[in-house]
Amino acid sequence: MRDSLVAAAFQLFLERGYEQTTVDDIVTLAGVGRRSFFRYFPSKEDVVFPDHERCLADMTELLGRSGDADDPVAQVCDAARLVLRMYAEKPTFSVQRYRLTRKVPGLRAYELSVVWRYERALAEYLRGRFAGRPDGTLRADVIAAAVVAAHNNGLRSWLRSDGRSDATAEVDHALAHVQQIFGTPGSSAETAGSAAPATPATEEDVVVVISKRGAPMWRVVQEIETTFGRDPG
Amino acid sequence: MRDSLVAAAFQLFLERGYEQTTVDDIVTLAGVGRRSFFRYFPSKEDVVFPDHERCLADMTELLGRSGDADDPVAQVCDAARLVLRMYAEKPTFSVQRYRLTRKVPGLRAYELSVVWRYERALAEYLRGRFAGRPDGTLRADVIAAAVVAAHNNGLRSWLRSDGRSDATAEVDHALAHVQQIFGTPGSSAETAGSAAPATPATEEDVVVVISKRGAPMWRVVQEIETTFGRDPG
Repeated sequence: MRDSLVAAAFQLFLERGYEQTTVDDIVTLAGVGRRSFFRYFPSKEDVVFPDHERCLADMTELLGRSGDADDPVAQVCDAARLVLRMYAEKPTFSVQRYRLTRKVPGLRAYELSVVWRYERALAEYLRGRFAGRPDGTLRADVIAAAVVAAHNNGLRSWLRSDGRSDATAEVDHALAHVQQIFGTPGSSAETAGSAAPATPATEEDVVVVISKRGAPMWRVVQEIETTFGRDPG
Repeated sequence: MRDSLVAAAFQLFLERGYEQTTVDDIVTLAGVGRRSFFRYFPSKEDVVFPDHERCLADMTELLGRSGDADDPVAQVCDAARLVLRMYAEKPTFSVQRYRLTRKVPGLRAYELSVVWRYERALAEYLRGRFAGRPDGTLRADVIAAAVVAAHNNGLRSWLRSDGRSDATAEVDHALAHVQQIFGTPGSSAETAGSAAPATPATEEDVVVVISKRGAPMWRVVQEIETTFGRDPG
């Protein structure tokens, strides 16, 4: 029932346009009553994004399960991947919706409010993990925003390719960029006891980085990452 | 005329609530006709945020004036400060609006769309600056999101203090956090010829950083920053 309402709605949105389609049109095509529609979707906008509530619940559950041993940045990257997975499960639908959302300002606004809820979920989790640390709230907000922006950059690349590129590779690449900036895989201060794939860290180890004074910070960070990875534990 | 419409609108929003106030109520109190209202504001929501269009235009102009010698991250931080300045110019109004926006979902959605436009303006500028570099678009999007998140974190601290804390100090602190992560004041690869306050950079200088393997990346970055600052040029 729910799926057939979504299918009917999208068929009409693509044929007539979003604004020109009413809830009555949708229920007539789906062969159900108006009340059935509103049992599943509070409004016409909600039928365009039928899976976000479930995805937000999954995200909250995933983050709720994570322990103190898990790297917080890696955790929010994994949480963001749930969104990618939801899109990648239905490539045709996702690409159609992307085109629709770009054309209808009301849907764009709806999408921004959904993105904001994801970002808040990630930020709340990070605020908990960074609680009591200097600038914990600030760091949490900045990292959550960076993860969402990177995820959406990768997701958009895939949507713009009409679903032809590798969605997972696009998003993984983008999230790796953020992890390189904010998280250190295997860094014990943040991830003591985590199952990160890097060499096990010992507080006593030291890493020496020699860098040209003129190098931009991101390049220095890259260098450190490489050094961390290359140096045998 | 424009200011008196905003004043009348806010008086009514605070007395009766936003939803319960009509455009007719506003124009009656302001003593003008409906047409005057719509000459200045496309909708009732727009009267709540009367200065964002001007601020967006100022931001575009500021970024348009910036040259290749300017540090791109410092530039977007300065652009973000224009938003802070707009809020800080009218502290009572800004605090009242903050409370109103938190209560009315429609205004929250409107605000998110405005924030998104600021973020796009910053990202577009950075995409231009990073054009042709590996992951230039990704870096641009991530930095723009981080700058907006940091700015809003500082701005919210000030709004939650009912305008009693130091708005500029709050936002400066938050933006310094982001600049520390993404930008290196005085780093020549990004800012050749800029008037950054740090010691002038020479490509041949080297910086040696020794760090515990377990240290989180942000602490390593902090250490590098300190080293850059301490080392006599």
